[in-house]
Amino acid sequence: MAAVLDPDRYFDPDPAVRRVARELYDETRRLPIVSPHGHVDPRILARDEPFAEPAALIVQPDHYILRLLYAQGVPLEALGVPRRDGGGTPVETDPCKVWQRFADHYYLFRGTPTGAWLDYELYDVFGVRDRLSPETAPGIYDEIREKLGAPEFRPRALFERFGIEVLATTDPVSDSLEHHRAIRESGWTGRVIPCLRPDAVFRIASPEWPAALEALGREHGAPLIDYAEFLQALQDRRGFFKRMGATATDHAVLEPYTTWLPPNEVEVLYQRARQGDVTPADERRFMGHLLMEMARLSLEDGLVMQIHAGALRDHNRPLFQQFGPDRGGDIPVATEFTRNLRALLNAFGNDPRLTLVVFTLDESTYSRELAPLAGHYPAMRLGPPWWFHDSLEGMRRFRERTTETAGIYKTAGFNDDTRAFCSIPARHDLARRADANFLAGLVARHVIDTSDARRMARALAYELAKETYKL
Amino acid sequence: MAAVLDPDRYFDPDPAVRRVARELYDETRRLPIVSPHGHVDPRILARDEPFAEPAALIVQPDHYILRLLYAQGVPLEALGVPRRDGGGTPVETDPCKVWQRFADHYYLFRGTPTGAWLDYELYDVFGVRDRLSPETAPGIYDEIREKLGAPEFRPRALFERFGIEVLATTDPVSDSLEHHRAIRESGWTGRVIPCLRPDAVFRIASPEWPAALEALGREHGAPLIDYAEFLQALQDRRGFFKRMGATATDHAVLEPYTTWLPPNEVEVLYQRARQGDVTPADERRFMGHLLMEMARLSLEDGLVMQIHAGALRDHNRPLFQQFGPDRGGDIPVATEFTRNLRALLNAFGNDPRLTLVVFTLDESTYSRELAPLAGHYPAMRLGPPWWFHDSLEGMRRFRERTTETAGIYKTAGFNDDTRAFCSIPARHDLARRADANFLAGLVARHVIDTSDARRMARALAYELAKETYKL
Amino acid sequence: MAAVLDPDRYFDPDPAVRRVARELYDETRRLPIVSPHGHVDPRILARDEPFAEPAALIVQPDHYILRLLYAQGVPLEALGVPRRDGGGTPVETDPCKVWQRFADHYYLFRGTPTGAWLDYELYDVFGVRDRLSPETAPGIYDEIREKLGAPEFRPRALFERFGIEVLATTDPVSDSLEHHRAIRESGWTGRVIPCLRPDAVFRIASPEWPAALEALGREHGAPLIDYAEFLQALQDRRGFFKRMGATATDHAVLEPYTTWLPPNEVEVLYQRARQGDVTPADERRFMGHLLMEMARLSLEDGLVMQIHAGALRDHNRPLFQQFGPDRGGDIPVATEFTRNLRALLNAFGNDPRLTLVVFTLDESTYSRELAPLAGHYPAMRLGPPWWFHDSLEGMRRFRERTTETAGIYKTAGFNDDTRAFCSIPARHDLARRADANFLAGLVARHVIDTSDARRMARALAYELAKETYKL
Repeated sequence: MAAVLDPDRYFDPDPAVRRVARELYDETRRLPIVSPHGHVDPRILARDEPFAEPAALIVQPDHYILRLLYAQGVPLEALGVPRRDGGGTPVETDPCKVWQRFADHYYLFRGTPTGAWLDYELYDVFGVRDRLSPETAPGIYDEIREKLGAPEFRPRALFERFGIEVLATTDPVSDSLEHHRAIRESGWTGRVIPCLRPDAVFRIASPEWPAALEALGREHGAPLIDYAEFLQALQDRRGFFKRMGATATDHAVLEPYTTWLPPNEVEVLYQRARQGDVTPADERRFMGHLLMEMARLSLEDGLVMQIHAGALRDHNRPLFQQFGPDRGGDIPVATEFTRNLRALLNAFGNDPRLTLVVFTLDESTYSRELAPLAGHYPAMRLGPPWWFHDSLEGMRRFRERTTETAGIYKTAGFNDDTRAFCSIPARHDLARRADANFLAGLVARHVIDTSDARRMARALAYELAKETYKL
Repeated sequence: MAAVLDPDRYFDPDPAVRRVARELYDETRRLPIVSPHGHVDPRILARDEPFAEPAALIVQPDHYILRLLYAQGVPLEALGVPRRDGGGTPVETDPCKVWQRFADHYYLFRGTPTGAWLDYELYDVFGVRDRLSPETAPGIYDEIREKLGAPEFRPRALFERFGIEVLATTDPVSDSLEHHRAIRESGWTGRVIPCLRPDAVFRIASPEWPAALEALGREHGAPLIDYAEFLQALQDRRGFFKRMGATATDHAVLEPYTTWLPPNEVEVLYQRARQGDVTPADERRFMGHLLMEMARLSLEDGLVMQIHAGALRDHNRPLFQQFGPDRGGDIPVATEFTRNLRALLNAFGNDPRLTLVVFTLDESTYSRELAPLAGHYPAMRLGPPWWFHDSLEGMRRFRERTTETAGIYKTAGFNDDTRAFCSIPARHDLARRADANFLAGLVARHVIDTSDARRMARALAYELAKETYKL
Repeated sequence: MAAVLDPDRYFDPDPAVRRVARELYDETRRLPIVSPHGHVDPRILARDEPFAEPAALIVQPDHYILRLLYAQGVPLEALGVPRRDGGGTPVETDPCKVWQRFADHYYLFRGTPTGAWLDYELYDVFGVRDRLSPETAPGIYDEIREKLGAPEFRPRALFERFGIEVLATTDPVSDSLEHHRAIRESGWTGRVIPCLRPDAVFRIASPEWPAALEALGREHGAPLIDYAEFLQALQDRRGFFKRMGATATDHAVLEPYTTWLPPNEVEVLYQRARQGDVTPADERRFMGHLLMEMARLSLEDGLVMQIHAGALRDHNRPLFQQFGPDRGGDIPVATEFTRNLRALLNAFGNDPRLTLVVFTLDESTYSRELAPLAGHYPAMRLGPPWWFHDSLEGMRRFRERTTETAGIYKTAGFNDDTRAFCSIPARHDLARRADANFLAGLVARHVIDTSDARRMARALAYELAKETYKL
């Protein structure tokens, strides 16, 4: 069966809405892509080598795909993912078989955003005109592999074809940013910038903390013997990232707790951490304090502060022990913002020099906490629907539950948040369609008029991301 | 005024959606009914006697109906429901007057699923062509009562007319299953199977626990002097239920807490329980441990494990004391799954031999916790929208909030969950219409195509329930 | 550009829905306005003096407007709002400039209910035919200011033009109700009634409590030396308010906790409060007990009891210290009703003499807790969507999540809840349109028929508010 991407896909079937949605989407579809938050490996663009083959490009690095296949009983080994300890069932080494297995289960993605992105990616990025199915899998595999060898499918060529104006990666605090440096020095004009993510050195109760701290000390060039030195190292890294093009930091927390600790308590905590003598409760307080410090430093250096709250990482411990992180075992928890962010917002939220972008996986907080907070504090913006909610229905719920209280002008535009480079245009396209459709619904109900909607569509597709992230 | 069941009822009015919804519903409307979870009294089908009269059949056993009438100020006594102590206002003994009172308040059910089911039941099951109203009540009463005397309105005849392929009841752990035995021995070929619900023997802090334990010991044929014997008795009952046709167990918990307790702690708890010396906190831990045991036993005997979490039973204590349980006083509470189910899912959730079906009354957990968990752990499935959410809007919310993360193939099909035997076809019909309409919306927005939708409609109406519950 | 209020605004664009929505709205649009809960200053109607000028009438008293402007970086001083301490940046004293600043940022309100209300108010109340924009601001300012001088724009004339049948204000427990008295004695027949709000004397841990208690004692005419006397004073004030026309009390609580305290504990708490020796935990218990007392007194005097739960007041402490309360810094928190209201509902919820109207800012409780509670307890009703949720989408969510479980007849009709007198008709109009549209959706899907819908529309627009609040 032939693959089709309907030009009206994702629009409301009502003719009055659809007509306006089409018109609004026509205003935004060709705007450049601004990608202020994501996880593309900068090495790809530094080296600009051809991508390997379809399974390694599309299936194996995408935890959205692995997750649903695993949930349906497909062992990770059968998808070519090895155990860390080398144990378990034999690992599939033939990428064609991995691709076939993926295609055999492609029906699982019906009605999911992953399915929508993949359809777009296959059709539009790789020009595949058959629908992926168990029967068509081998042919499509060959077709894509062949294309990947051509110059126009190299990473930088795709970057340009995708119309990316700027792409931010996410980088550990101690990263040397060598790939970013290589890109800048290569003479290529594509704008790829880092984003500072210092989580690893904030998690003082984690077994990985000593190594993370040591790495930071190494980059800093001095041992981090006390809290003041530790904080200085963080400040220096902020400066370094900023010089390398960064405009933002990012902080992943289970709970968005913020608090000022008295200086002596911070020092005691820090020293106890260095001796490996801290509890999760200590870590919570320490991180709550560090978020305050980060906001304070943002006033000075102007880096936008992002908080991604509410993912319980590596929920599936046996799987984590076998395969490591990012294998689909991160599960959201109920999240509280009103009380948790109060210290930070009271201290810095009235200061227009701060931009704080907040993300949640708990949709019940959209209308209850986040929109009221962003609709009041000048410094706060709402990040776009994140992760599981980066989807048609998720975007609809986000707009319906935040717009009436915070308006669209306190939201931060779209983030693709992806490590799957070739899915970037698919994700932005879906978001632009979803926003066009949302606005068209308002026009059709005479809540806003078409000229307003046109301006709002541009803001959502392009301007708000640039403005929020100072790009 | 004439009663009408519009052939397009519950479908979106948009012509593009409605056309597809109709087409999909036509694929599923005549499929057999698979009812893997419900509360029909098996005695009805064992005896196969004519139903009494309309009030006793339709009004008095349906706590959905009693609830709203009571909420509007109609005393339960006026509906023929006596107090346990015989006190209170005089009990209405004339079923015609009960029926009339119900009809007088029928307007309360406008826009509720109970109203939709009743309309269907009256029109389609009993062939009533007048709308129920204060004026038509007596005539409709007589019409139904007369029909109930006819052979084609006997329970087994209705079972066959309804097209029920299999009907599961819900039975206490110590039940002798005599009615199930009688059905099997009667030569009638209707498939009616039990489902094991051991809650009563799990609730060690309840005043009813000693009696429940004694009953279990009696069936077991030996005193349950220690935890090992208690567990053996549970295992034996599982075996007995399975031999009687059961494919599942069911567990109602306030909180879906799971944990392994050390063996000595379990034994101490069990002995303290036998001495009546336990607190609700003890019960919570004991139940958390027993859920682990149940999952473990499921790996061995293959019984599907259901968890219904989050109903605070008998919230209205005065009413409970006067009238007993199931009088409408069960109220949901916020429920946490991510942390509570972690122990169980870490221990058994990666094992495809387990099927765990989870139900919630807290819709905020659909997209936040349940879909991410089911979209990751191979053993977990999402139960259909339960109780208050078994409704048009409830089903829409369920699909909209779970499909994008977990797909439809990690959901468990439909449960009617009813004790109102004659409402079974109404409930399945409404679910099939709701699912057809949901899928039609995806087709109209080009998220899926019609051939996908057709397969998905069959899965939702029939196949997923059969497969999930191993029927 | 000309301002337009489309006659079909806020209706679904689907022709089948829109046709019915129009028809239902035509039934309700001209019904009198019943406003049982709001914050209009009774002085306005007692004095009946002309309103000052547009900025003071429309911008400065409306914290919905100030909130979004402030959130976008406009200092409150620039809107003419002075600091309490006289500090900060210079306060704008020219109302024309305040109006201009408001108009410059009018785009922020696109898609918000405030925008919808303002459009209606300008067009329909003040007859302005230009759209408000930076360019048209001065002309519109002059146009409104001129009109405000005319007799038909005096408060009482507007009250009559708006078709207000009854308007309830909200008044502190120690208020002398002098303005209400003045209205009654003026010979004007407009019905303006007070509503008793005793929160200030319930908050024993607040620094304002001693003054509030003293004021109560003054009105009571005797020192409130013990709890019995305090309670007697409350009871007397209830009687006084009732004689002045009140039919309801109102209670704002962070958490809707209810409990009976033993008499000696209450007395000890009360005495400790008088000595300034109480904690927030004490206050919580004291308020939980007082809510029980209020419900008990309602059985006797028949005053309807309202609970508004879940707003954390003055979240932004620096702003509160500078500008005082009601500057936009009230933020919702997650709220629990099932367990918190249990004591009160067990004690009084089965008694039809009590009417308890419950409001929430936590929409996750609509389907989980509030609709099940109101769908069971005869005394309980659901207040309309409150504050941030008093909006098109908010109303839709409320109806979709409560109707199936509680029906519409356990809801309390509409509250405008506003201090912006001239926005009253806009708010009722939007609510009537939203309800007409909701019902039209049910008709178009054949859930209810048109004759049912017509009766339900009248109930939602007019009858339920009158009946619930005994007006």
